[in-house]
Amino acid sequence: MSETLGHVETPSLILDLERLDRNLARMRDQLSRWPEVTFRPHMKTAKSVDVARRVLPDGGPIIVSTLHEAEYFFDHGFSDILYGVGVSPDKFPRIARLAERSARITVILDNLATAEALVVFAAETGLAIHVLIEIDTDGHRSGVAPDADILPPIGRVLDQAGLLRGVLTHAGESYGARSLEALHGFAELERSGAVRAAERLRAAGCSAPVVSVGSTPTALFAQDLTGVTEVRAGVFMFQDLVMAGAGVCTPEDLALSVLTTVIGHQAEKNWIITDAGWMALSRDRGTERQAVDQGYGLVCDVDGRRIGELVMVSANQEHGVIADRNGGAVSPEDFPVGTRLRILPNHACATAAQHGTYAVLQDGLITDRWNRERGW
Amino acid sequence: MSETLGHVETPSLILDLERLDRNLARMRDQLSRWPEVTFRPHMKTAKSVDVARRVLPDGGPIIVSTLHEAEYFFDHGFSDILYGVGVSPDKFPRIARLAERSARITVILDNLATAEALVVFAAETGLAIHVLIEIDTDGHRSGVAPDADILPPIGRVLDQAGLLRGVLTHAGESYGARSLEALHGFAELERSGAVRAAERLRAAGCSAPVVSVGSTPTALFAQDLTGVTEVRAGVFMFQDLVMAGAGVCTPEDLALSVLTTVIGHQAEKNWIITDAGWMALSRDRGTERQAVDQGYGLVCDVDGRRIGELVMVSANQEHGVIADRNGGAVSPEDFPVGTRLRILPNHACATAAQHGTYAVLQDGLITDRWNRERGW
Repeated sequence: MSETLGHVETPSLILDLERLDRNLARMRDQLSRWPEVTFRPHMKTAKSVDVARRVLPDGGPIIVSTLHEAEYFFDHGFSDILYGVGVSPDKFPRIARLAERSARITVILDNLATAEALVVFAAETGLAIHVLIEIDTDGHRSGVAPDADILPPIGRVLDQAGLLRGVLTHAGESYGARSLEALHGFAELERSGAVRAAERLRAAGCSAPVVSVGSTPTALFAQDLTGVTEVRAGVFMFQDLVMAGAGVCTPEDLALSVLTTVIGHQAEKNWIITDAGWMALSRDRGTERQAVDQGYGLVCDVDGRRIGELVMVSANQEHGVIADRNGGAVSPEDFPVGTRLRILPNHACATAAQHGTYAVLQDGLITDRWNRERGW
Repeated sequence: MSETLGHVETPSLILDLERLDRNLARMRDQLSRWPEVTFRPHMKTAKSVDVARRVLPDGGPIIVSTLHEAEYFFDHGFSDILYGVGVSPDKFPRIARLAERSARITVILDNLATAEALVVFAAETGLAIHVLIEIDTDGHRSGVAPDADILPPIGRVLDQAGLLRGVLTHAGESYGARSLEALHGFAELERSGAVRAAERLRAAGCSAPVVSVGSTPTALFAQDLTGVTEVRAGVFMFQDLVMAGAGVCTPEDLALSVLTTVIGHQAEKNWIITDAGWMALSRDRGTERQAVDQGYGLVCDVDGRRIGELVMVSANQEHGVIADRNGGAVSPEDFPVGTRLRILPNHACATAAQHGTYAVLQDGLITDRWNRERGW
């Protein structure tokens, strides 16, 4: 039962299927240069089995950010799952329950204490839990440096127990890129650091066949993947204004938008008031420190065409305020109460997280609703 | 089945029942000075019928921020519901469905176009939909100024159709208060503006018995409610660091916290890495422009006691970074992997919105799980 965008309840999260497919094709094209490299898409952005099946029509390996996602995707036929947040011992039993159901579960860790605890747990349960050591190639957050003294000892503890599979890194700092050179540089930083770490483990006698790298910017702009066996990315499916600001895509690539309704004006302030506040967009202000601050998002008409320099300049819980970014006049007559608008978000992961469903847009109509999973 | 905080899955949203009850008692005490004034708590923060019943054991009027909340609370026995976001005509049919079920529904609006559309709709359906005109007393967002020329015409359109009930204002700017004088000032600004608007409507021949004001700061610090018939507030139930920064409460009043587990360290940076990122805390940085920036939240031990000057300094989707706010040394040995911590949030509404349940803490144990509603 198709609906027009004029009839959908607002606020709603709109997923433009044509743009999604175009973004998926772009990544497939890029990675087709390295047919021997495994692609493991990150489901933390989409959190939807319908999207996952669009990305991987024949199934395939995925990475997730919560154990709830791991369980959800496993229940829907995805059995090769990497849990991409450093594991802690309190989560071992829940991971074990997946392994008992024959999930191929891989975890990551970056310290000796967790490695030793996992070795004990694996011996006690007899379960196959694969481990990648998290490598910090850009100072972003977690991980051991490729050249850290502690790397071989962690590797040996895991390898002697038959758990070690290799290394993983994520160049999170690449989101801050401002040029093509920077994007190429982050991709090479990620590759070279991960490969060096794997080689140090191998030199220490460990089996480390897997070298997993990835982020949307580095996956799309990698020029060399020598030594890499696996690439991961998630945001690329939808793209967002942060990615556009980093030169990774254009605003016309964004597959997500928030449909909203004009509920009033403050004419003397040149404000349009809408029913989409931070509850619908999230509090993410990821473009704030980029060259162009997009506020809470770029404003488009109901058909997805940008309207001059209108941006969502502020947000309350269920109210959005739209204005011209340069303070220009905005006439209430051009946007009467009831007008439908669409906001392109700063950060796809954060905005999508505020919603329980995607309203799937195809040929100008909402043709389907896809569930999104939340929680841990 | 009680659980200790050491056994609950992380991240989890913890609701301290004793603190909730203390916050409710404080508001009851404050408002007991005006027994003739109706209290209409805002359910946009709690979004939980269990919390609502704690606030209003005998039922009573509520305000909500979405029509989904209106339907949810009506289904759970709350029949006097104010929808506190300016209504637009596309939402009339859904409101009518509640009115048909004998809900006492009140809407707000601030423009002639919506008033006229509602009059037509009410005449067509024969439904009783009450209206308050939204008044802008502090330039915060929506509403007509108390002295605006358009106010009497809007009032007359509604009054002639028998829909007008009065006026409503919300001093959202009071969240930016920095002193007791400022808090008192915002309360008086709200009261005097709303009363003046109601008197103008009455002078124009309209029936406007209801004068509804409110926000957590103004409700708790009002000294005079002459002419006011109804007070609203929501955040007061849980309080948060923004309210503490505005002098409305102390961090020891905060009833919500996010339970998290240490998953690693970056020792040379004095970072503790946890499994609670912005997905668990939200991206809200509401204390950023206050006198004390609390990052993504204040860090407490598992029993809720603050730990020195530790704050959550940054957040990725499922990673939190904790550090000393002054850059002091943080020893990994003091916070080994697996350590449980609790983060006091900037903004109760935003942090709670990230969670589907409250883990209810009573006498040091999680004794219950309360559902939270999301969506529109």
